[in-house]
Amino acid sequence: MASSSSLTLSQAILSRHASISHRNASSNPHNLPSISLPTFSGLKSTATPSTTTSRRRSSSTRRQAQVLASATLETLVKTDTALVEKSINTIRFLAIDAVEKASSGHPGLPMGCAPMGHILYDEVMKYNPKNPYWFNRDRFVLSAGHGCMLQYALLHLAGYDSVKEEDLKQFRQWGSRTPGHPENFETPGVEVTTGPLGQGIANAVGLALAERHLAARYNKPDAEIVDHYTYGILGDGCQMEGLSNEACSLAGHWGLGKLIAFYDDNHISIDGDTEIAFTESVDLRFEALGWHVIWVKNGNTGFDEIRAAIKEAKAVKDKPTLIKVTTTIGFGSPNKANSYSVHGSALGAKEVEATRQNLGWPYEPFHVPEDVKKHWSRHVPEGAAYEAEWSAKFAEYEKKYPEEAAELKSIITGELPAGWEKALPTYTPESPADATRNLSQQNLNALAKVHAGLLGGSADLASSNMTLLKMFGDFQKKTPEERNVRFGVREHGMGAICNGIALHSPGLLPYCATFFVFTDYMRAAIRISALSEAGVIYVMTHDSIGLGEDGPTHQPIEHLASFRAMPNVLMLRPADGNETAGSYKVAVLNRKRPSILALSRQKLPQLAGTSIEGVEKGGYIISDNSSGNKPDVILIGTGSELEIAAKAADELRKEGKAIRVVSLVSWELFDEQSAEYKESIFPVAVTARVSIEAGSTFGWQKIVGAKGKSIGIDRFGASAPAGKIYKEFGITAEAVVAAAKSVS
Amino acid sequence: MASSSSLTLSQAILSRHASISHRNASSNPHNLPSISLPTFSGLKSTATPSTTTSRRRSSSTRRQAQVLASATLETLVKTDTALVEKSINTIRFLAIDAVEKASSGHPGLPMGCAPMGHILYDEVMKYNPKNPYWFNRDRFVLSAGHGCMLQYALLHLAGYDSVKEEDLKQFRQWGSRTPGHPENFETPGVEVTTGPLGQGIANAVGLALAERHLAARYNKPDAEIVDHYTYGILGDGCQMEGLSNEACSLAGHWGLGKLIAFYDDNHISIDGDTEIAFTESVDLRFEALGWHVIWVKNGNTGFDEIRAAIKEAKAVKDKPTLIKVTTTIGFGSPNKANSYSVHGSALGAKEVEATRQNLGWPYEPFHVPEDVKKHWSRHVPEGAAYEAEWSAKFAEYEKKYPEEAAELKSIITGELPAGWEKALPTYTPESPADATRNLSQQNLNALAKVHAGLLGGSADLASSNMTLLKMFGDFQKKTPEERNVRFGVREHGMGAICNGIALHSPGLLPYCATFFVFTDYMRAAIRISALSEAGVIYVMTHDSIGLGEDGPTHQPIEHLASFRAMPNVLMLRPADGNETAGSYKVAVLNRKRPSILALSRQKLPQLAGTSIEGVEKGGYIISDNSSGNKPDVILIGTGSELEIAAKAADELRKEGKAIRVVSLVSWELFDEQSAEYKESIFPVAVTARVSIEAGSTFGWQKIVGAKGKSIGIDRFGASAPAGKIYKEFGITAEAVVAAAKSVS
Repeated sequence: MASSSSLTLSQAILSRHASISHRNASSNPHNLPSISLPTFSGLKSTATPSTTTSRRRSSSTRRQAQVLASATLETLVKTDTALVEKSINTIRFLAIDAVEKASSGHPGLPMGCAPMGHILYDEVMKYNPKNPYWFNRDRFVLSAGHGCMLQYALLHLAGYDSVKEEDLKQFRQWGSRTPGHPENFETPGVEVTTGPLGQGIANAVGLALAERHLAARYNKPDAEIVDHYTYGILGDGCQMEGLSNEACSLAGHWGLGKLIAFYDDNHISIDGDTEIAFTESVDLRFEALGWHVIWVKNGNTGFDEIRAAIKEAKAVKDKPTLIKVTTTIGFGSPNKANSYSVHGSALGAKEVEATRQNLGWPYEPFHVPEDVKKHWSRHVPEGAAYEAEWSAKFAEYEKKYPEEAAELKSIITGELPAGWEKALPTYTPESPADATRNLSQQNLNALAKVHAGLLGGSADLASSNMTLLKMFGDFQKKTPEERNVRFGVREHGMGAICNGIALHSPGLLPYCATFFVFTDYMRAAIRISALSEAGVIYVMTHDSIGLGEDGPTHQPIEHLASFRAMPNVLMLRPADGNETAGSYKVAVLNRKRPSILALSRQKLPQLAGTSIEGVEKGGYIISDNSSGNKPDVILIGTGSELEIAAKAADELRKEGKAIRVVSLVSWELFDEQSAEYKESIFPVAVTARVSIEAGSTFGWQKIVGAKGKSIGIDRFGASAPAGKIYKEFGITAEAVVAAAKSVS
Repeated sequence: MASSSSLTLSQAILSRHASISHRNASSNPHNLPSISLPTFSGLKSTATPSTTTSRRRSSSTRRQAQVLASATLETLVKTDTALVEKSINTIRFLAIDAVEKASSGHPGLPMGCAPMGHILYDEVMKYNPKNPYWFNRDRFVLSAGHGCMLQYALLHLAGYDSVKEEDLKQFRQWGSRTPGHPENFETPGVEVTTGPLGQGIANAVGLALAERHLAARYNKPDAEIVDHYTYGILGDGCQMEGLSNEACSLAGHWGLGKLIAFYDDNHISIDGDTEIAFTESVDLRFEALGWHVIWVKNGNTGFDEIRAAIKEAKAVKDKPTLIKVTTTIGFGSPNKANSYSVHGSALGAKEVEATRQNLGWPYEPFHVPEDVKKHWSRHVPEGAAYEAEWSAKFAEYEKKYPEEAAELKSIITGELPAGWEKALPTYTPESPADATRNLSQQNLNALAKVHAGLLGGSADLASSNMTLLKMFGDFQKKTPEERNVRFGVREHGMGAICNGIALHSPGLLPYCATFFVFTDYMRAAIRISALSEAGVIYVMTHDSIGLGEDGPTHQPIEHLASFRAMPNVLMLRPADGNETAGSYKVAVLNRKRPSILALSRQKLPQLAGTSIEGVEKGGYIISDNSSGNKPDVILIGTGSELEIAAKAADELRKEGKAIRVVSLVSWELFDEQSAEYKESIFPVAVTARVSIEAGSTFGWQKIVGAKGKSIGIDRFGASAPAGKIYKEFGITAEAVVAAAKSVS
């Protein structure tokens, strides 16, 4: 019986952890001896509270699991340890076999981390294999994503439909659900997309932040409706990346007690022993970052050590915990264990055979022994019970707290309140001139009133990026219900944390901010937003030489082009208030791709002809004195240069020219329009086109064509007042007028 | 007298540091009392050895400086402390006045860090103001670059021609030598370009690495010809950036004892008190990273504490030192000190006046009091003497060790040995097919034999990036003379460290490597390479979907476009052996801009028609069966897709078409060719053009025109064997043939 297996295992542990019970009578219907189950127990369904104040109700599944086996504890210890070992070896061989079949992949980590993987998925975590999106599930992130076969094996054993045996056999093949690194958009059960090192642990910080924030906002003394842990495994590579230090420094600062990260301390990276490049004290560094640190010295066979560490980690509620688990990479491989050769290559038939011999594994490739299968089979009914129990709890919550429940529901489902977009401010040409960064803040604050899931902040530039939500305080250790997140000067960590927040719940809408040029620091995280379909809003101010005196280190040039080239990103450069509102409308609606808003430091006038609807089309006409879709010249601008295009048009019209002015606020959205619409904006017959944008002209030839001209900046900027730089660099109405005359 | 001022100051310190002399008779010509001068002494010219084993000779300047003043020490202490305070206030007010005049800038840091700045430039560092490029100077890096007025004030006082009074008055103005952040290419005396936080401290690690490496290679027991310190100041912002953790972890690992970093611990960042986002223990973290850590609790007036800390730091030879100096941001401003308002804005006339009152500063803006001027005036003759002394030493060295001297000279001057390029390998179509990453390694190893300054390595992917120099061992703490640098998984730190190495000496040629997609992690450092004219070679392998199974997280798509859009970068994508050699030739010759080599994981054939000379032109014809510069179609490829273009040409020629195949290995180099040359490759009249590249098509319209077609990838990649992905994504000769037919 699956549940008795799990039970006996728990009892085996209990024999070493007996203590006074925290459970009350109602949660102990069978009058079991009053002993406390450690939180890492296989008896997850006995509902050990994950915080001391929570009291769960029993469910039929749990009751079933609480029936005591009749065998003696002594016997059980042996039996169950053997079964645990067998399960762990199953994980190891599923990884070995899949990598071998693909002739590609990373067997070393799964072989070394199988024990912690087994304990997490079989004994500790709460999840529902048949609904990987159940809101209150524990989250798991494999930050060392190359070891993805570990996670695929665990999802397979746990009963997820996304990873069947045939999927394991298709590891790393075209169209499979088991790609070379974990990808949330391919494999339900995978929470985030990892592989680029350090991203995962930072995502995990975001997931843990989301849990803490939502728990603080929605839990009630009688209803702990948000309550899960976030687990992660990171390797030496993740540890070396500065990104992980940024995110972990914040996790320590915020005291994210329900974040538990396993550090696979195996002393091997691709180039060999970590001694050659990584001799810092990771333990001490994490203590410095405000984490609780535990060292499991024997991660290969010290199952109880791992369990005890998790128990200890859960008991520390005001700090995240790093469990350093010393493991042997490629454990079990007699000739390749503990060497870099097992990190990223198939073992080879001979060594696979040797490993089978060494670990006593007589089975065919991809075989899951019946007793292991049986043991794991309880997770499907248990998972269903977890969700059912939570759903019942939520139904009660909804009765008692209808407003909060409705709000939380919108966060869980991502459904927007009807008419939300009416909250966005609108502007007329008479509205005062303003920097789009300020207009952005008006939009953020307007959205905060109607969007329950909006939260975010800046990398120490809140007062420059204009990102503070005025009706809220700071998200901090003691005020986790607030929505202004202070990321410090940690752009990369900020982006990756926001990916975690976005992927926690469909209705969470994280935004983050810095100067546009510093997207360079966080580009890897932005790419993961795009790839993993995390609809983060990037509020990027000081978007050109228009920032002035800070000079070329702070002035973006190539950044617009570089994001226009990146797949699945919306790069938006609004010109004024209406276009800023339009950009926010687009950003809020696009939950499967990130939006980057490039915003000005300098004041810009509210232009005639701009509109939210225009922005939604990516490119549109703001003014035109031509007829029959035959302008003499089309002037195209974006953001702060749209004003210049409009001015140049005025000049040229005075001279009798028929001039169309187009705002090309988002190339991606424009690309998605119909051919007819595109022809109505850029008629093929009209080749006299001039673009102006205070950035690289790279890519503009697509818009202006071979006969057009692009006014832009193909060098680094300069330190001087903004107006002076614009003039010196020729980003002027005069230059547009001259170019227009030269092309028409 | 300047020198007596400095002397008396030293004596004042000496009264507290008397001990047994380490100087021998010859260095003590005036028979001074036999006492040891602390290394932080104002009497730098008394040549306190910077390592215990070194023994310097006296020079006339030093002798002059050793004349004892007749006044008693007691009196001198007062006088000199007063003068030091006056000098420090001069620095503060130069910063205040320049920011005020510009109405832009950051007065807070200079006001808080003026004491450590004064002590460094006036009492500790060895430099020659009239030759800012003197090889053996101490290096100083202001990592907190926004505080650049501190450095400008110090350079001004020290007598650098780059920062005259009129330059200070032109702070942050168009064309000035005092831009908004320190820029080495604008201001001689500034070593590197800082501002983007964390870059500077990582550059400093590179500078210190360069010193240690060159010292290990060239110093002799009787001639310490390379021997300087690297100092830096970093702020809270730098500390929060993951980049600084990466670089500092390596500095600790390498034991760079001559790196001394001051941490301006002022508890204020732009968003307010660092308490809101930065509560980790920096001290403990640096201890974890293997640094020696000292805390100066009173950085505002504790001059002797600062001096003692530097002395202690110099005594610790096997670890870098972090001197945490607790300061008050905006020290002296009665209403704005210790607040974020003084961080990044001018004080305002009223507060400037209040600060003048508060610090007792009766002078006009930009005034340097006579006694302060006099005190600092000794640095010009002293600096000249330092250089003269070193030059004499080098002349002796040259006599004794002519080979080493010649090599070192080439590193100091950047002059390449005649005929060096002959070392580059060449290939014929009969040479075996190979991945360009392997061909790259052949080039690197060939270059290492002729280029004394070549050193570098990979971010833990040496065996994938193929970057090991086979004739050398690893640069490590105990083998600093070796040239294979092991960066660990720290791409960003790696890039920034290489910038420091490149800017240490014109003849140092650092290269660094990772997968091309992970340029996203180090993009900010690459941009600084481009801006600061650091000719780093970026060896970026696995440059497309051709890497196969690792999948979309590892497959670059938009990266070629994103670097083609970045100013002052050479983006090179060689197709085979000859083109790889050509790319290295170009990279070695371009010392004022970085080169990025995009290299394949997969094997590629040696193509007919490729050449080093072709690469030098950026784009060239590898095969053509047309005449009169009138091909029917031009096929254009780069890197691994040039082979596909060549195959498609073969097909089309079989059908009787006149086909030109162009390799466009570097767009930047091609752009620099004459109009005639360009017309000879891409005749305006020939609009039938097809490009193929396994990356974003963004930007290609410039090459193929409105009537041409670009075959590329405008989505994320996939996890599968490479051949399968190429086929599924349509990156095939068939697709090129079809496109060619459709456009011609």
